[in-house]
Amino acid sequence: MGKVYTGASTSIDGYVSGPDFSGFDRLFRWYESGDVAFTVPTGAMTVHLTPASAAYFGGLIQATGALVVGRKLYDYTNAWGGQHPMGVHTVVLTHRPLEDNEHFTFCSDGIEKAIEIAQSHAGDKGVGLNSGEVARQAIDAGLVDEIFLDLVPVLLGGGTPFFAPGKGYQLEGPLSVIEGSEVTHLRYKVRYGDAAEAE
Amino acid sequence: MGKVYTGASTSIDGYVSGPDFSGFDRLFRWYESGDVAFTVPTGAMTVHLTPASAAYFGGLIQATGALVVGRKLYDYTNAWGGQHPMGVHTVVLTHRPLEDNEHFTFCSDGIEKAIEIAQSHAGDKGVGLNSGEVARQAIDAGLVDEIFLDLVPVLLGGGTPFFAPGKGYQLEGPLSVIEGSEVTHLRYKVRYGDAAEAE
Repeated sequence: MGKVYTGASTSIDGYVSGPDFSGFDRLFRWYESGDVAFTVPTGAMTVHLTPASAAYFGGLIQATGALVVGRKLYDYTNAWGGQHPMGVHTVVLTHRPLEDNEHFTFCSDGIEKAIEIAQSHAGDKGVGLNSGEVARQAIDAGLVDEIFLDLVPVLLGGGTPFFAPGKGYQLEGPLSVIEGSEVTHLRYKVRYGDAAEAE
Repeated sequence: MGKVYTGASTSIDGYVSGPDFSGFDRLFRWYESGDVAFTVPTGAMTVHLTPASAAYFGGLIQATGALVVGRKLYDYTNAWGGQHPMGVHTVVLTHRPLEDNEHFTFCSDGIEKAIEIAQSHAGDKGVGLNSGEVARQAIDAGLVDEIFLDLVPVLLGGGTPFFAPGKGYQLEGPLSVIEGSEVTHLRYKVRYGDAAEAE
């Protein structure tokens, strides 16, 4: 079974969106900061990355077999127009489930169940968790293997933090540091178990 | 005149101290994660760093001619036992000034004045700003050239953020990325002026 990871484009002050859902132009500037045209699996969009970011992003997409996302993100993106751009099955964790379809499963039975469903779609590949709320629940349930931080050179000054306040955890790493343009890709491992939690 | 910079050991979730002033053992683990014995200018403490972190830390100390700190930090450290370990003159920004002495000046006339006093002590060297509150005031006053982020692989889950909520700013960089052990040293430039503020 593949890894469970969460990742996000995050400002220096820790936000994945600015006040009132602003700041996305800043957080995703690295999507248009290079010469390598990179089309997502569904063909829904083409971004232009540095060679380093393209290799990182391509590797991440290849390693991802399914996703778990929050309902807020699903609604905000209008279901990504019908399918997530990564082209993989997407489980939406929600208290207000809609009808399942080819690309989406709605789960209201908690994060463990949502990840289990995603894994059944992912095969040998990993499961990606999108949105801070989903990530926090999964971390607290002991289910996150790795954290991918796409650290973006901006202070947003407020908004939605990647990691909502809660329990602390020791991480290991960075396992890798990849320098893009307008972004630094950092990968960490979550350490659970003995003395794993920050005091 | 040297640069004005602020820097801090910061958790992945953006905190410079955990809940109730906890977490320092985690945030400063990199002070004891290598084989290079490094004694601070005053001789007050010796840490053990990787070669990369030692070069970084030594360079930072050499480039720093004076400091501006918040009163909370001054009180919390008990005036660092009489002198800041960096061995440079330290301006304490406070509404409750104490009597100035050889190593400390107390300033209640705002951040601009505090930095001006520090610069008069720094000569050609730079001025470092310690504590998020001081950094936020200085950034908002347009006075910070660079941000040094010592990014530490831990989630603290709460506490004091490096950057208190407020206005947003576009940064440039990282100008440098140095991989230590238990820390990644990142340096950014603050971009002021036209279109500099995050929308």
